[in-house]
Amino acid sequence: MPPSRWTVSTRLDVRYDIRETPGLLDPANPTLADILTSDARGGLRLVLVDHAVARLYGARIEQYLKEYNISHRLLELSGDENRKTMGQVLGIISALNDVGTLRVSDAPVAIGGGVVLDVVGLAASLYRRGIPHTRIPTTLLAQVDVSVAAKTGVNYQGYRNRIGSYNPPPLTLIDPTFLRTVSARHISNGAGEIFKMGLIKDAALFELLERCGPALVAGKFQSTTAAEAIGRAIAGMIDELENNLWEKELRRAVDHGHSFSPLVEMRHVHELLHGEAVALDCLLSAVIAHGRGYLGHHTIDRIAATAAGLGLRTWHPAFGDTALLMQALTDTMRHRNGNQNLPVVREIGRATFLNDVSTEEISDAAQHMRRLGERQEPKLAHHGTNR
Amino acid sequence: MPPSRWTVSTRLDVRYDIRETPGLLDPANPTLADILTSDARGGLRLVLVDHAVARLYGARIEQYLKEYNISHRLLELSGDENRKTMGQVLGIISALNDVGTLRVSDAPVAIGGGVVLDVVGLAASLYRRGIPHTRIPTTLLAQVDVSVAAKTGVNYQGYRNRIGSYNPPPLTLIDPTFLRTVSARHISNGAGEIFKMGLIKDAALFELLERCGPALVAGKFQSTTAAEAIGRAIAGMIDELENNLWEKELRRAVDHGHSFSPLVEMRHVHELLHGEAVALDCLLSAVIAHGRGYLGHHTIDRIAATAAGLGLRTWHPAFGDTALLMQALTDTMRHRNGNQNLPVVREIGRATFLNDVSTEEISDAAQHMRRLGERQEPKLAHHGTNR
Repeated sequence: MPPSRWTVSTRLDVRYDIRETPGLLDPANPTLADILTSDARGGLRLVLVDHAVARLYGARIEQYLKEYNISHRLLELSGDENRKTMGQVLGIISALNDVGTLRVSDAPVAIGGGVVLDVVGLAASLYRRGIPHTRIPTTLLAQVDVSVAAKTGVNYQGYRNRIGSYNPPPLTLIDPTFLRTVSARHISNGAGEIFKMGLIKDAALFELLERCGPALVAGKFQSTTAAEAIGRAIAGMIDELENNLWEKELRRAVDHGHSFSPLVEMRHVHELLHGEAVALDCLLSAVIAHGRGYLGHHTIDRIAATAAGLGLRTWHPAFGDTALLMQALTDTMRHRNGNQNLPVVREIGRATFLNDVSTEEISDAAQHMRRLGERQEPKLAHHGTNR
Repeated sequence: MPPSRWTVSTRLDVRYDIRETPGLLDPANPTLADILTSDARGGLRLVLVDHAVARLYGARIEQYLKEYNISHRLLELSGDENRKTMGQVLGIISALNDVGTLRVSDAPVAIGGGVVLDVVGLAASLYRRGIPHTRIPTTLLAQVDVSVAAKTGVNYQGYRNRIGSYNPPPLTLIDPTFLRTVSARHISNGAGEIFKMGLIKDAALFELLERCGPALVAGKFQSTTAAEAIGRAIAGMIDELENNLWEKELRRAVDHGHSFSPLVEMRHVHELLHGEAVALDCLLSAVIAHGRGYLGHHTIDRIAATAAGLGLRTWHPAFGDTALLMQALTDTMRHRNGNQNLPVVREIGRATFLNDVSTEEISDAAQHMRRLGERQEPKLAHHGTNR
C-alpha cells in the first residue's frame, strides 16, 4: 500500500463595513443601539474604552447605553503605546470569560485610539478562537488607518506589533465629531498616515494636504475638505488592502514610512508618536528616492514643507543614528522575508520598491534629511508636549 | 454630503497537505530534508519538540539534520496538558525572534504530541501575524486528530483551549513508526478520537474498532488494519472540516464527545487524558441517545464494549457530579452561541443534534452510564498509570 496523502482545500470569505456615523453618542441617534440590539442575546456586553475616552465620553457612553437598555460592563484600558502588551490582551480575555461572552452574539465594542483597538482586536481574535466585535476609532490616526486594517497586535520585547493576527471586525463606525476633543499633536499624528497615503497612492490627496494642511489641523479635520481627505485616505487604503489582506504579497506600498520607523518609534516611545515616526521615515525615503534621481529638489522640498504644514516633525536625532536605522531595516527585512522591498516615492502619488539600498546611501540620505528638516519653519509648535 | 460608507470584500484561499511518510528520521530517507531545503534561506531553523520526543528521538533528529546540513536550533517544551499555556507560546515567540525567523522561509518545525503542536501552532499564528510551520505528530491522538485540524490553542484560567486561532500549517507529516514508542495508555487515548469518528460518521470504522480494537492497541496501530483505521479517521475529519474550517457553523458532528469533557478533563487533568475524557463523553451521549429511543440496549452495550476493547475507561466519578456536567454544558453552550447543539449518535455512523436536554435527563443518563460501565470487563488494564 503506497503512503497516503490528503489535501484540505477551502476558502474563507471576508467582508466588513466601515461607516461614517456622526453624533454616535447622541441619545437621539439610534444607529449604535440598533447595531447592538441586532446581535443581542440577553448577555452582558463588554464595552472597552481607553482612559482618554473614559474621561471625555465615559458619562455619555453610560447614558446612551442606559437610554437604550443595553446591559453592559465598561472596562477601561490604557491607550499608551508602551501598554500595548499581551498582559492587556489576557486581561480582556479574562473579562470576556467573566461576563460569559458568546461565540457570535453580544459581541464586545471597542471605543478608543489605535492602541485599544489593536489590543481588543487581538483579544477578540484569540478568545474562543475568534469572536466578532465592533470598532469605534476616536482619534484621527485610528479613523484613517486602523479603521480599515485587518491587523491586530501588541508590542513584544521592544518590537512593535511582534505579536498579532488578522481579524477585521464586521463593522467599524467613524464619528468625526470625536476629533474635536483630540489634541493638536494627535491630530497631526493622524495626518502622518494621510500624508503617507497621498505620497504613494493619491497625488490629489497630497496636493490637498499641501494646500490646506495647516487649516485642516487647526480645524481638527471637521471641514468638508477634511472629510474629503479622510475619505480619500480610507478609499486608498481599502484599494491597497482588499487584494492583499493577509499580506501574502510582501511588497506593500502602504508599508511606506514603516521600514525604519517601527524600531525608532519603540526606542523613542516617550518622544515620538506613530504617525510622527512614519512621516519621518517617509522623509528619509523621499531623500533616498531623490538620490536615485526619482524626485527633484523642488519635490522633496514640497514633501518636507507639507509634513511641516501638518504639524509633523521633519527631523529627529534618531535618524542620525545609522546603526539604529540599519538594525531597524534588518528586522523589517525579516518581516519581508529577507528582502528590503523598500517602498519609495517614484513620483508623487506612485511608489516603487528598492532592494539594493546600502548603509552609506541611508547614512547620506539621513544627513540630507537633517539639512532639509532644518530649513522647515515649524508651522505648528506642539512637538515635545505629550498629548 | 451623506455619510460615507465603505465595504471591504475579499477571500482567503487555504490549502494544506497531510502526508504519510514512514521512516521520517531514517538518514536514508530525504523526504524531510527535501521539504526543509525547499524553503531554506540560510537562516537558523527552530525545531520544537516535547520532552518525550527529545528523550526518545532527540539524538536521531540531531543526527538527521546534521547529515543534511540543516542549521537549526532545537527547543524542548513541556508536552503536559497543564503546561499548555500562553507562557509557553510567548517563550516560543521569543525563540523565533532570537533566531530571526523570516516571514515565510526557514519556517519552524514542531515534532510531538497534541500539546506541543497546539502551542507551536498558536505561536506561529501570532509571530509577525503568522508564519508557516511544519507539523510532525508523534502520538496517535495527534496523528488522527490534530494532524487535520486548523485549530491551535492553549488553556486559560481552567478552561480548555480558551485562547486559540485557526492556523493550519501548509504540511503535516505522519510517520506511523513513531507510535511504536507510545505507551499503551496513550495509544488508547488516541483511539478515543477514532472511536468518536466511527460513532458519528463511519459505521464501517466503528465495526473495525469493535472487531479489532484490542489487537490494534496491542500492536500499537502498526498493522494494515490500523492504517485503514487511521486513514478512515483522517478522511472523515477532513470531510467534516473542509467546509467548516473556521467553525462558522456551530452544529458540528465532530464536537461529539466534546460537550461535557472539556471541563471534566481540566478538573481531572492528572487522571484523565483528552481521548479518555472524550470517550466518556461519547458514552454519556450514547445513553442520552438511548433515552431518546435512538439507540437500543444492544447498541449501547456494543458502544461501551468497543470503548473498553480499546483500553478506554467506561466510567469516571466526575460523570457522577451533575453540577460539574451542567457547568461544563453551560460553558460549551457559550461556545455554541447559546445553543446546546449536543451531537448524539442517531444510529452508529450518523449524528443528530439535541437542543432540549434537561439536567434530570443528564443526571439519569450518567447513572445509567455508571451501571453500563461497571458491566464492562477492562480489556486493557492501564488506567491509573500515568503514561
